[in-house]
Amino acid sequence: MAIIVQKFGGSSVADAAKVKNVASRVIDTYQEGNSVVVVVSAQGDTTDDLIDKAHEINENPSKREMDMLLASGEQISIVLLAMAIEDRGFPVISLTGWQAGFVTNSNSGNARIKKIDTERILSELDKKKIVIVAGFQGLDKYDDITTLGRGGSDTSAVAIAAAIHADKCEIYTDVDGVYTADPRIVPSAKKLDAITYDEMLDLASLGANVLHNRSVEMAKKYSVKLEVKSSFEKVDGTIVKEAVSVEKMLIRGVARDNDVARIAIVGLEDKPGIAFRVFSLLAKKGINVDVILQSIGREGKKDISFTVTKNHMQEAIKLLEAEKETLCYDEITHRDDISKVSIVGAGMVNNPGVAAKMFEALYDAGINIHMISTSETKISVLINVNNAERAVQAIHDKFLI
Amino acid sequence: MAIIVQKFGGSSVADAAKVKNVASRVIDTYQEGNSVVVVVSAQGDTTDDLIDKAHEINENPSKREMDMLLASGEQISIVLLAMAIEDRGFPVISLTGWQAGFVTNSNSGNARIKKIDTERILSELDKKKIVIVAGFQGLDKYDDITTLGRGGSDTSAVAIAAAIHADKCEIYTDVDGVYTADPRIVPSAKKLDAITYDEMLDLASLGANVLHNRSVEMAKKYSVKLEVKSSFEKVDGTIVKEAVSVEKMLIRGVARDNDVARIAIVGLEDKPGIAFRVFSLLAKKGINVDVILQSIGREGKKDISFTVTKNHMQEAIKLLEAEKETLCYDEITHRDDISKVSIVGAGMVNNPGVAAKMFEALYDAGINIHMISTSETKISVLINVNNAERAVQAIHDKFLI
Repeated sequence: MAIIVQKFGGSSVADAAKVKNVASRVIDTYQEGNSVVVVVSAQGDTTDDLIDKAHEINENPSKREMDMLLASGEQISIVLLAMAIEDRGFPVISLTGWQAGFVTNSNSGNARIKKIDTERILSELDKKKIVIVAGFQGLDKYDDITTLGRGGSDTSAVAIAAAIHADKCEIYTDVDGVYTADPRIVPSAKKLDAITYDEMLDLASLGANVLHNRSVEMAKKYSVKLEVKSSFEKVDGTIVKEAVSVEKMLIRGVARDNDVARIAIVGLEDKPGIAFRVFSLLAKKGINVDVILQSIGREGKKDISFTVTKNHMQEAIKLLEAEKETLCYDEITHRDDISKVSIVGAGMVNNPGVAAKMFEALYDAGINIHMISTSETKISVLINVNNAERAVQAIHDKFLI
Repeated sequence: MAIIVQKFGGSSVADAAKVKNVASRVIDTYQEGNSVVVVVSAQGDTTDDLIDKAHEINENPSKREMDMLLASGEQISIVLLAMAIEDRGFPVISLTGWQAGFVTNSNSGNARIKKIDTERILSELDKKKIVIVAGFQGLDKYDDITTLGRGGSDTSAVAIAAAIHADKCEIYTDVDGVYTADPRIVPSAKKLDAITYDEMLDLASLGANVLHNRSVEMAKKYSVKLEVKSSFEKVDGTIVKEAVSVEKMLIRGVARDNDVARIAIVGLEDKPGIAFRVFSLLAKKGINVDVILQSIGREGKKDISFTVTKNHMQEAIKLLEAEKETLCYDEITHRDDISKVSIVGAGMVNNPGVAAKMFEALYDAGINIHMISTSETKISVLINVNNAERAVQAIHDKFLI
């Protein structure tokens, strides 16, 4: 009797058998009397294969054409899922992003959803059809296909759930919920029954890899009730919502993010507005900067270090080098063999000892810290990537066992 | 200074090297100062691969979903060609069928073009861009993606040429023009400099495999000047237009079509309207019938034989069997190990000896004829498929050497 949006990632639909498994999950929900909208990503390695195909022909294709290419990946996966549901005898229709009404801005490769014209989705639901929607894609005002960038399919699912006022948005993944740490690294990690948007947001943006932060931010903004569940096992997942009954845990979880590169601008002239110019330069090109550290260097000069995702590293360096004359710096250094390890929890705000306890855990494990960043609800450190798993284990043992 | 539409088939863009080759051909035309619109099919075996993927999941998927799946094939090939042109530094944009303004009816799998809204294509040409359009696909009034069926990409190209009043529509293929017979079968076959629409139409519908009859019909209707050219060699092709200077050839060419299945309805009651009911039944389901032969059977009954393309054979038989009671016949027989071999030429209408000469060629080669069909400009025979190549050779030798 409810409206439920379900999202399945690429690994959940990687081959014919898995597509049929997803079809069964969807049909079960439909047969319970619910209206069901399903958002699907491209199958398995399809996106990477398409990128390889493009790079065989053009090392540096335009983002507009790349979006058009990548969007074909979901167009294939939605059809295959629809066909699997047809094969079981249930009414179904697949819709591309633009057919489903996704209107985005024109920022190819990393477009933002402006609105969803829900008419088509709602009219298909009225016909009692299961509606399969291509995640990750939309259409801009010029009728050009856009893609939403990282975490796009999660965001598509939450956006639909918000637009059609769904009762729940279920995100199906390889794991059966949100854990206090990655269970593949920390076997003693515990599954959480529930977590707040803010805690999930910290975990997501810190590389827990369960939900992308854009989707959690949108879920928070529109109060969409999320559930993170397993694609393969039929067990309760983790609910993400506004308020969670407080548990006696200082921290909610430990996360690791290896998709980090550090860039340092060494020897900047110490004059006003330099940081503004550096980061507005990057922002204009859609490069998100994460941890920022500014330090005083020698002779009245200063250094600025910051992190970006690995795929943005070369572009960021190129941008900065092109502006070397106006920014006035000595040199740029970079490294991408690093990892960001973080602890998250609303409980730490009133516990000044949390940071010290985390650093102690790392010290005991003999792990060196390159950079530190703290906020009210999380503490992140940058360390060598080959220490990352041991660091997660050590911190988890210290806090959560 | 002209507007030129170029169409490249799937084998012309089968891999990265071939895509780059096509990009060079397109750029050459653009650099001569022409406005260029390019229509591309899906790469090589992509369409077959997608069909296999679908059948792994559902033996009998809906045509609506199949069209959505197949359309992704051209979406990939147009982007790759656009990227190859970008790589060479020329302005270019790829457009799907619906972006290019193709409006079709809702006959999924075999849709007809109703109109082309040329606004987008023309505005991109105004910006001096090379425009790459996905062939074979369009959008119906419900915003569902459709495909045009066999010969769809040729038809897309001619339709654009007609809609934007192009000076020429060049169809690039594996061969460098239209020959008096398939050069792979008859090494002495000669390339024609020019041919009329009607002759091309006969050759196309008779299986010469160079141009699909739908595209030639449309070219004739809108007086689009066609040229059949080689994708790989830079030589003049064959021009297809209204009037061609008469050459001293009795016949224009020999064609073979192996995609033929014969169905015989044996022992039909000999009452009025039976043929009408049989063929309207098939027409309603979009099954095209080719050669029809009606003969008097025993005891006041008659037999009707006809041919369809192989992929329609089972569906046609099923339709007829479902109506066995109302049609009143004894049995249905069928075979698909046959070939249709035809000679074409405006010259034969005043030469009653042409048919006899053709049959003599087959008799000399010891080839048995199953069915004969004649019109003013062509003579077709149905023979065993394993005799087809010898038959083409024998007829070509008789007439054209």
